[in-house]
Amino acid sequence: MKKNVKKRIVLAFGGNALQKNGEVTAEAQKKIAEEVGEAIYELSSKYEIVIAHGNGPQVGNILIHEENASSDKAPAMPLETAVAMSQGQIGYWLTQAINNAFLAHGKQAKVATIVSQVVVSKNDPAFKKPSKPIGQFYDMATAKKLADQKGWTVKEDAGRGWRRVVPSPRPIDIIEKKTIVELIRDGIIVIAAGGGGIPVYRTKVLRRIKGVDAVIDKDFAGEKLAELVKADIFISVTAVPNACIKFGTPEEQKIGIIKASEISKYLPEFKAGSMLPKVQAAIMFANKNKIGIITDIDHLKEALDGKAGTIITK
Amino acid sequence: MKKNVKKRIVLAFGGNALQKNGEVTAEAQKKIAEEVGEAIYELSSKYEIVIAHGNGPQVGNILIHEENASSDKAPAMPLETAVAMSQGQIGYWLTQAINNAFLAHGKQAKVATIVSQVVVSKNDPAFKKPSKPIGQFYDMATAKKLADQKGWTVKEDAGRGWRRVVPSPRPIDIIEKKTIVELIRDGIIVIAAGGGGIPVYRTKVLRRIKGVDAVIDKDFAGEKLAELVKADIFISVTAVPNACIKFGTPEEQKIGIIKASEISKYLPEFKAGSMLPKVQAAIMFANKNKIGIITDIDHLKEALDGKAGTIITK
Repeated sequence: MKKNVKKRIVLAFGGNALQKNGEVTAEAQKKIAEEVGEAIYELSSKYEIVIAHGNGPQVGNILIHEENASSDKAPAMPLETAVAMSQGQIGYWLTQAINNAFLAHGKQAKVATIVSQVVVSKNDPAFKKPSKPIGQFYDMATAKKLADQKGWTVKEDAGRGWRRVVPSPRPIDIIEKKTIVELIRDGIIVIAAGGGGIPVYRTKVLRRIKGVDAVIDKDFAGEKLAELVKADIFISVTAVPNACIKFGTPEEQKIGIIKASEISKYLPEFKAGSMLPKVQAAIMFANKNKIGIITDIDHLKEALDGKAGTIITK
Repeated sequence: MKKNVKKRIVLAFGGNALQKNGEVTAEAQKKIAEEVGEAIYELSSKYEIVIAHGNGPQVGNILIHEENASSDKAPAMPLETAVAMSQGQIGYWLTQAINNAFLAHGKQAKVATIVSQVVVSKNDPAFKKPSKPIGQFYDMATAKKLADQKGWTVKEDAGRGWRRVVPSPRPIDIIEKKTIVELIRDGIIVIAAGGGGIPVYRTKVLRRIKGVDAVIDKDFAGEKLAELVKADIFISVTAVPNACIKFGTPEEQKIGIIKASEISKYLPEFKAGSMLPKVQAAIMFANKNKIGIITDIDHLKEALDGKAGTIITK
C-alpha cells in the first residue's frame, strides 16, 4: 500500500479549457478531454486526485437551447438543474477520457463523477447584487420583457447586448463531502463540484436543502473542496503557465514561488472573472498552511515538483 | 454494525414516475421525487439500496430543446451526451429528495449519484434495427430531411407523426461497477445507471470505450446493475402494484408470488416497452437464484416482506 505516502491534490479546470481550440461541438470537447485524461494518468501514480471543473460555455449552451425552445410541454429547467445537467455532461466526458488514458497504458482507471450540491448562504451579498452574465444575448426590449416575465435581472454586457445576470455567491459547504472522502480513500479519482457545484441553501425548516438560481465560481468551489477533503495542494489549471504581474504589457513578469502576503499586494492587477478568482482561491488555500498553485496543463507535473507555475505558500 | 445483515436491493424507477401527475416542470418533478426520498428513507434501515432510473420524458425534453435551438455556435449534443445530462438532472433531484427525507427525520443521508457508462455490443442486433422513438414529432417531409442530414433513422409513430428511432441494445457491463460496490460497502445509497446508462461500446483499439447514440432500457440496465453489485433483490418500481394477466379486461388477474418458469408462459400478454421489459428483467434476475419484484412505490415495503407485488423466484 503506497496510499499513505500519496499527496492529495484538487485540480480545478476551466470549462473554457475544453473549448480552447474555439471548437464547441461535443466531439471537439471530448478530444481535448483526452489531454486532461492523459495528464491525470501521469499524476495518478504519485497523487490522490480530485477534479473540479467549470461549465461556463457548456451551461451557456444548455441555457441557449432552453431559452429558445421551451414551451408548456417542454419547459425550460431552472438554472440549478441546468448546472446539474452540465455536471453529467462534462463529468461523463472527463470520466471516459480518464478511463481511456488508463486503457492506453494497459491499466484500469478507478474514476467516478459525483453529482455535487454546494451550499451557499441566502445572506450572501451576491444575492442582492447579481453580477454573473449567463445564457444568450438579447436586445434591450426583449431582455426587459424577459426580466418582467421571469423575474430575471438583466444587464447590458460590454456593448455586446443584454444578458441575464445571476448571483455568484461563495461556497460554504459541499453536501457530498463525506462520500467524496470515502471514494478518495478507496483509491478512486473523483470528479466533483462540477461547474462550481449545484447551488443549494439550507432552509429554516429542518435545515432542508433547496436549489437556488446562481452560479458558484469554480475556483472558489475547488478551493472549498480542497479544504473539505483535506487536500495538500489546490491547483487552478488555466490557459497560461503562470500568473503574471503587468500581464500583456512589455513589463510582464511571471510570478513563480511566492508568499500569500506578497502576491496579495498585486491583487488589483488581476482581471476579475479571469485570473483574479484563481489567485484569490490559491491565496485562501495557502493561508490554511497548504499550497496553492496556478499553472497550465503542460506544466502540471513540474509545478507539483516546485519547478514551474505560480506556487503560493503561507 | 448491522451492515452484514442488510439485504442489498436495486430499485429501478421509471422516468415517467416523476411526471405521474402529468406535470412536467422541474418543480413538479422535484415534488414527486420527495415521495421517492421518503420511500428510500423508510427502506434504508433494513436494506442497502441502489437506485436506477429511467429518463424517457426528461431526455425527450432535452432533445426537443436541442433539436429546435441548435446552431453552429450552440450545437446540439449527441444522444449519449444528452443521456449523461439527464443523469445529472434526475440524479440531482433524487439525491436532494433523499437528503431532505433524512433531514425530516433528524438524520443525515449518505447518498451519491454516479455518472454511469453502460457497455453494449456493437454486434447487438438492435443496431441493425433501431426501434426506440425519441425526441419530438415531425411531419414526414421534415423527418426525411433530418434523416438525410443527420443520418437518423425515422419512423411513423402510431399516427401521431414521424420521429427519430434509435437502437435499444442490451446492457452487458457497467464501467463504474467497482466504484458503485465500494460506495455500497461504505454505507452509501447509490444512484447509478440513470436513463439506462450512457451507452458506450469497446473499440478494437486497446478496448477503449466510446459513446454511441442509443438508449438502454432502464429495467434491463437495473437488472444488470443488480447482477454486478450482487444484489439480493431487483425491483422494478412502476405505476401499478402488480403485473396482471389480461390487464385492462374484466378477467384481469393480479400476479403475486410466482416462479419464473410459470410467469414466462404469460410473456406474450405483456405490453412491449411497458410491462414486458419489467417482467423480462425480473425473470432474468430470478433465474440467477435471486428475487425479482414488480410493484409500485406504495407497496415497496410490503412487497419486500413478501406481502404485496409480483414476486418472481426461480
